[in-house]
Amino acid sequence: MLEQKKAYKTPVEDLGEFALIEQLTKSVIATLPSTLHGIGDDAAVLKHEGELVVSTDMLIEGVHFDLGYMPLKHLGYKAVVVNLSDIYAMGAQATQVLVSIAVSNRFTLEAMEEIYAGIHLACKTYGVDLVGGDTTSSKQGIQLSVTALGIAPKSGPIMRSGAKEKDLLVVTGDLGAAYMGLQVLARENEVFKVNPNHKADLDPYTYLVERQLKPEARKDIIALFQALEVTPTSMIDISDGLSSEVLHLCKQSEVGCRLYEEKIPLDPQFIAVCEEFNVDSTTLALSGGEDYELLFTIKQADFQKIKANPNMTVIGHITDKSDSVNLITRGDELIPIKAQGWKAF
Amino acid sequence: MLEQKKAYKTPVEDLGEFALIEQLTKSVIATLPSTLHGIGDDAAVLKHEGELVVSTDMLIEGVHFDLGYMPLKHLGYKAVVVNLSDIYAMGAQATQVLVSIAVSNRFTLEAMEEIYAGIHLACKTYGVDLVGGDTTSSKQGIQLSVTALGIAPKSGPIMRSGAKEKDLLVVTGDLGAAYMGLQVLARENEVFKVNPNHKADLDPYTYLVERQLKPEARKDIIALFQALEVTPTSMIDISDGLSSEVLHLCKQSEVGCRLYEEKIPLDPQFIAVCEEFNVDSTTLALSGGEDYELLFTIKQADFQKIKANPNMTVIGHITDKSDSVNLITRGDELIPIKAQGWKAF
Repeated sequence: MLEQKKAYKTPVEDLGEFALIEQLTKSVIATLPSTLHGIGDDAAVLKHEGELVVSTDMLIEGVHFDLGYMPLKHLGYKAVVVNLSDIYAMGAQATQVLVSIAVSNRFTLEAMEEIYAGIHLACKTYGVDLVGGDTTSSKQGIQLSVTALGIAPKSGPIMRSGAKEKDLLVVTGDLGAAYMGLQVLARENEVFKVNPNHKADLDPYTYLVERQLKPEARKDIIALFQALEVTPTSMIDISDGLSSEVLHLCKQSEVGCRLYEEKIPLDPQFIAVCEEFNVDSTTLALSGGEDYELLFTIKQADFQKIKANPNMTVIGHITDKSDSVNLITRGDELIPIKAQGWKAF
Repeated sequence: MLEQKKAYKTPVEDLGEFALIEQLTKSVIATLPSTLHGIGDDAAVLKHEGELVVSTDMLIEGVHFDLGYMPLKHLGYKAVVVNLSDIYAMGAQATQVLVSIAVSNRFTLEAMEEIYAGIHLACKTYGVDLVGGDTTSSKQGIQLSVTALGIAPKSGPIMRSGAKEKDLLVVTGDLGAAYMGLQVLARENEVFKVNPNHKADLDPYTYLVERQLKPEARKDIIALFQALEVTPTSMIDISDGLSSEVLHLCKQSEVGCRLYEEKIPLDPQFIAVCEEFNVDSTTLALSGGEDYELLFTIKQADFQKIKANPNMTVIGHITDKSDSVNLITRGDELIPIKAQGWKAF
């Protein structure tokens, strides 16, 4: 995984932009009725019923990822998935993506094909159409930009601003693992740089590494809301860390909240590796980013519907704004939460 | 214009991502009924009737622009405009844009505000809403990514693929000036590097420089089609040069064409400066990019409707595919057109 040994031979500059785009997108077939025309014109043509949601994100080499441990196919996959996560965070169904890539001339056609293999796989996995993008050269490294579109539920999109006092605060999956996966990969990469014969044994870290390299967006949760007949009052995805997202949600809903340390869902592997690295698991679960889980609030009356579901954990409740945003520790201390989320600057 | 003397003092890293975004977008007000929720949630929420068109482009420092002569405000303006041009090329009305910017830490808040001033001005000028984006750090230079959305006319979007034999080939405005503007700016920038006291006299080049630094998208032409009751059979915008776009249009329409050298509209200043630079004006009009004019085809029956309009020039006609794509020179020679358009690689 830490090495890429395929023969990457064809410089992209030999092809020119149009031939490159044709090569990379020739296998793309629009699958959704809402995609009237995909790649190939000045713009894609779509026909949606209802409210559209649209979101965009950039991924910059050296800032958001390191090709020392991020395989190109995973990069393409992750770039799409992190954008889809924003669509699901609106309670919406993702439908289309546009992907732009700038690469320096050290990249080959074969390398670009690897990235696109990941993009195509993500589109197939989540049932979205790749309908456009841009391919250009960069001065240095890879920059990706993805725009994702989706359709809000008939009851309307779920905004960050809808949480009300006494609502329950719920999180999907478990937190912190993606960040610890990054720490593991960074450590192995440093060892590899010093000793290129070093064989990384990542077996004890499989879950963490997968959370970092191949994150998934919680499309399944949107379906689950329907099945359980639960409509969250507010929702946000956890890309920058739980602290940061709780603060966003409370700020935009004009509420406070109490979040219980003992309730934060942690994977056993995450806990074990936090011990190995001698770091505090709660701190990392609060401030480590890239989990792409969903954080949402529900009315107390809906608690019965979700309480048996292993994908969802109630971690706190919404309070009046004057109470501000607090963590209740295992020792029953009340600590104000400040953003410690991942910062791009 | 070649110097920026404002005091740029506040490093972006002092603010953090969220404060920066808030600062840059606090004045944004959604103006269109189709914008239900703009910036501030995981995704924007839009409600469109009819067919949606969507397009995206990246602009990379050192590839697409040089801050040596591109003022930051113009950069923001141009980034939006070149994307709107793709929307108008579908015959559509542009409605919303999302703008992502990655900047290295050499940039300050004040520099970012300059870029955003250009973005806001373009949005106001074209009547579109800024509804989202991403702001992050880069390893080197500025990278921008813009996604534009629009609404196709009720009769449907105008595709590249609709040209038919005997249709007339029409171009708006004049060609080549933006490319010559770039040559002028690059020359002045080289002189400035050698002699920082050099005062550029750009008076003889005003039109060319403006075409390069402050291009406009042809929203007016879409309105003109309605007023003249003309529906083009095919359309594309001229971003990579006339040759390249004619080839795209003919390939996707499965037709050939004859394009007459003497008909290509050139501005007198462009002709004069081509002489000064000792370059062939036809070659540059064919292969120089960034004019953001529209190239389209109409039925012969519509000729009467457009012939008196100074914004539109008939430059040729569509032929059978077997005739391929040809330039008829002033000397009545027939020369096959090959793409010489601007290449990003």
